[in-house]
Amino acid sequence: MSRSMSHVAVFGPGLMGASLLMALRKKSPESKLTAWARREEAVRELQERGLVDIASTDPATVVRGAEAVVLCVPVDRMEEVAGAISPFVDAEALVTDVGSTKEGLCGRLEKIFSKHANFVGSHPMCGSESSGLQAARADLYEGALCVVCPTSSTRSDLPEKAQKLWQSLGARTAIMSPVEHDAAAAVASHVPHVAAAALVGLVASEHEAFRSLCSSGFRDTTRIASGSPEIWSAILSENSTAVCAALEKLEGILAKYRRAISLADNGGVRRMLGEAAAARAKLVAEN
Amino acid sequence: MSRSMSHVAVFGPGLMGASLLMALRKKSPESKLTAWARREEAVRELQERGLVDIASTDPATVVRGAEAVVLCVPVDRMEEVAGAISPFVDAEALVTDVGSTKEGLCGRLEKIFSKHANFVGSHPMCGSESSGLQAARADLYEGALCVVCPTSSTRSDLPEKAQKLWQSLGARTAIMSPVEHDAAAAVASHVPHVAAAALVGLVASEHEAFRSLCSSGFRDTTRIASGSPEIWSAILSENSTAVCAALEKLEGILAKYRRAISLADNGGVRRMLGEAAAARAKLVAEN
Repeated sequence: MSRSMSHVAVFGPGLMGASLLMALRKKSPESKLTAWARREEAVRELQERGLVDIASTDPATVVRGAEAVVLCVPVDRMEEVAGAISPFVDAEALVTDVGSTKEGLCGRLEKIFSKHANFVGSHPMCGSESSGLQAARADLYEGALCVVCPTSSTRSDLPEKAQKLWQSLGARTAIMSPVEHDAAAAVASHVPHVAAAALVGLVASEHEAFRSLCSSGFRDTTRIASGSPEIWSAILSENSTAVCAALEKLEGILAKYRRAISLADNGGVRRMLGEAAAARAKLVAEN
Repeated sequence: MSRSMSHVAVFGPGLMGASLLMALRKKSPESKLTAWARREEAVRELQERGLVDIASTDPATVVRGAEAVVLCVPVDRMEEVAGAISPFVDAEALVTDVGSTKEGLCGRLEKIFSKHANFVGSHPMCGSESSGLQAARADLYEGALCVVCPTSSTRSDLPEKAQKLWQSLGARTAIMSPVEHDAAAAVASHVPHVAAAALVGLVASEHEAFRSLCSSGFRDTTRIASGSPEIWSAILSENSTAVCAALEKLEGILAKYRRAISLADNGGVRRMLGEAAAARAKLVAEN
């Protein structure tokens, strides 16, 4: 393995940021860790838990001298935080993020860090329905896929640097363009989130007695619907074009099932379910 | 607890039937257990595993003298098996089933067992994406909800007998009419199954690279889509009216999300997601 980063600065001590600090502490004990939080209470908690060398509400204090800077705030707060730190980032540093959407976000963050062309986007696919520092764990990134999204204007050393950072935490990495990432994330993550929420909405709209039938299958299918409404509405808004296109496709597939079921086309229903079961087995084996 | 059944006969050694045998062996070691399987290999496996006192491919051998008879074959094979055993069932016996649909099935099975009015339908909500004897486990019914579905012509002693049988295995029980059960199962179980399969279909229809982004959230959301296509197409066909109505509602909810996302109505999306997260928290707390 390559040498550890000398100093990593993490912005935002939520599930992703705090887990990142815990993982770095464990995997790169020699790295200096600094962290920024908006609230004083969060700063104190980071210090009390011993997760960082320095925690502060002052962006400049946290970012100065960092070899890598990771933005772990919700997607709709990224620009504000980026704007506050860009004057203080080292010219050679890597700046990346953990946002669940990439196209619009990478464009805006690239612009903010354009002076030294420090930025390349990342998306570690290891979110959870839990959020916040309380839910953080050192092994969150272990075995997860982290997509790194360079653009035509990304400085040439950054994609590899970002991949090495994630790999050092046990993550697998892939390179995709931001557009490709967003289309893939829409079908693999964002639309499943909406579908899970819609299934809960369907049950909630019915007679109260119906709820008692929601068993372990229902709980698993809708687990992600417990995710933070704030974080997820921001993600869906950021990736609205790809999400709406994928949602429309999903509605079409559901309507196809509905037609086959209403026409008593059992062979057709069985074939579609069989294809889905086979495709899922392949997906699980691959990932 | 009330006394155990003296003799329970189980038809079909799949996940539900074999788990039932294992649970009875554990919870009611004094009960005589007999089991029917279509194939000789399954009969041998039941015997070799010591799950039964007698296993046979002959329905009469298995059912004679049983105090309770439980039909654990797929919903589209229930009538055939019921027809084969009805001449041999004790007049006082309880006959029930574990089918995931109730209205049509209860009507047809009631008719087959009309001589002694032995039948009342059950649905233990503890299926799994696994199926078959290999997946069976003694604690499958532990804590699960089992819905018992009497009709206006159900013999008055049967609902309580059926509830006691399921309760003796650690299940919770509820009484619902078959129609009410089917409407509830459509929204709580059957439509979530179709939605999970449709989400897999959505990913499978896209570029192969998209699959790599299917992380733990996607795997949980679609777990039930790995269920047996044969079993599930039969369930969807049996409950087609309620399933199609609920599918249409789900499509409507998804379209509502899509409209709000495309109109950049972030407040509306956040509100819907918040309601879903709150409703799910309530559901999980209740069940």
